[in-house]
Amino acid sequence: MLNDEEKHLWKYLEGFLTPERKERMKTVLEQRTRYVTCVLEDLFDPRNGSAVIRHCDALGIHELHAIENRHHFKSDTQVDLGTAQWLDMRVYRKPREGAPTSVKGRRRAAQASPDGTPPLLESQTPIVLAELKSRGYRIVATSPHAADDALPETLDLTAGPAAVVFGSEKHGISDEVREAADVFLRIPMVGFVESFNLSASAAIVFHVLSRRIRQEGLHWRLEAEDAERVMFTWIRRTAPHAERLIARFEAEKNLSG
Amino acid sequence: MLNDEEKHLWKYLEGFLTPERKERMKTVLEQRTRYVTCVLEDLFDPRNGSAVIRHCDALGIHELHAIENRHHFKSDTQVDLGTAQWLDMRVYRKPREGAPTSVKGRRRAAQASPDGTPPLLESQTPIVLAELKSRGYRIVATSPHAADDALPETLDLTAGPAAVVFGSEKHGISDEVREAADVFLRIPMVGFVESFNLSASAAIVFHVLSRRIRQEGLHWRLEAEDAERVMFTWIRRTAPHAERLIARFEAEKNLSG
Repeated sequence: MLNDEEKHLWKYLEGFLTPERKERMKTVLEQRTRYVTCVLEDLFDPRNGSAVIRHCDALGIHELHAIENRHHFKSDTQVDLGTAQWLDMRVYRKPREGAPTSVKGRRRAAQASPDGTPPLLESQTPIVLAELKSRGYRIVATSPHAADDALPETLDLTAGPAAVVFGSEKHGISDEVREAADVFLRIPMVGFVESFNLSASAAIVFHVLSRRIRQEGLHWRLEAEDAERVMFTWIRRTAPHAERLIARFEAEKNLSG
Repeated sequence: MLNDEEKHLWKYLEGFLTPERKERMKTVLEQRTRYVTCVLEDLFDPRNGSAVIRHCDALGIHELHAIENRHHFKSDTQVDLGTAQWLDMRVYRKPREGAPTSVKGRRRAAQASPDGTPPLLESQTPIVLAELKSRGYRIVATSPHAADDALPETLDLTAGPAAVVFGSEKHGISDEVREAADVFLRIPMVGFVESFNLSASAAIVFHVLSRRIRQEGLHWRLEAEDAERVMFTWIRRTAPHAERLIARFEAEKNLSG
């Protein structure tokens, strides 16, 4: 629930939005879901991350987790078209170089990286996936290989919300994802090429899942409190000159207080 | 039907392929279709063309038409991963600068292009679409706008084979496509962004249609003669050192003839 101060700020900022803008935000909000969430593991190419951000916005996938292990997650606003501000994006920043905290981490850091890939100090993947599991998500690992994997069309969505994990461009999902996975997902392919590029895979998977959660009577919408909080965040982030307005709001509050 | 000389060349080149390679080609060939074909109108970014080439191979869409009007169609083998050689790709080269042949063409060429876009001398789109129509294709124009457009999941595929047209990155489909279209197709979107990038759109559309033609009992496979011709083309294009082998074959034939 928003507290009174937040409610006041909301009302104040809302006054600077056009009715059309408010209406648009409401319409989009009603189609947002967390029932399917996107996890990107250690992407390298900013174009891929950005393309997936844009897909998520377009398809109503509100929550996106970007895990940095070796590579910094960068987004290119020329590709994502500014859609990142409309998502609940959680970027798990790559651990700084220094003493890794676990034995496993130290062992990994000690390994040379012959092709110039930055060293892996400590994989954050297990922490992120454990957190998602504790929230009730099934870990759905995308992998182009096993014939008996689920397809986007056949994945059991009634078993619970799905966190769909896409691995890095070069190596695919990590062993940590493989270990944590509840189910593997593949996109059927019948050509000579053995994989789709990451952006295409994500577009296909989220298009199909976004359609299915709506058709299969699942409890996919945001809870009322969550939706209220999302709307508040959107208004704070995107009201014209929001920062200046918020500063002015704070100043007026202090004067009247 | 292949003639005797072609059959001899086939046998000759086949001798240089491993059994695994031949088996792989046969498996892929059995999944090829022309029931759905891809038309790209005047793409600008080589990455998009290349990504679509890769999607088409992966999804068994064998025939791809690339129309150049203002821009040269370029492909980036880093993105298409060499899949172009496995497709029936028909590139309609941009007319050379010079006197356009029609009044409409001359009028267009006379118009300045304020943003540096190359002038449109003569659109080849109507010719390509007319040719596809004469072969029985319905022209399916992708367009992000009209709410009553068909979806990939609802497009009537029993009405005939579908030529799905994707317009240029900047301007979408041309008026010529709009005029020739039998049906419009859109991908549902529920976010702030109003479109997918071209590669993502194509991936979604062809994934869904490729799946549907297989499930809906349509006559989607290549005809026997067509399949034979495709296999012959593949062998000619991709046998190791094919050019040298073909030259040697010709020389031996002349000696024995």
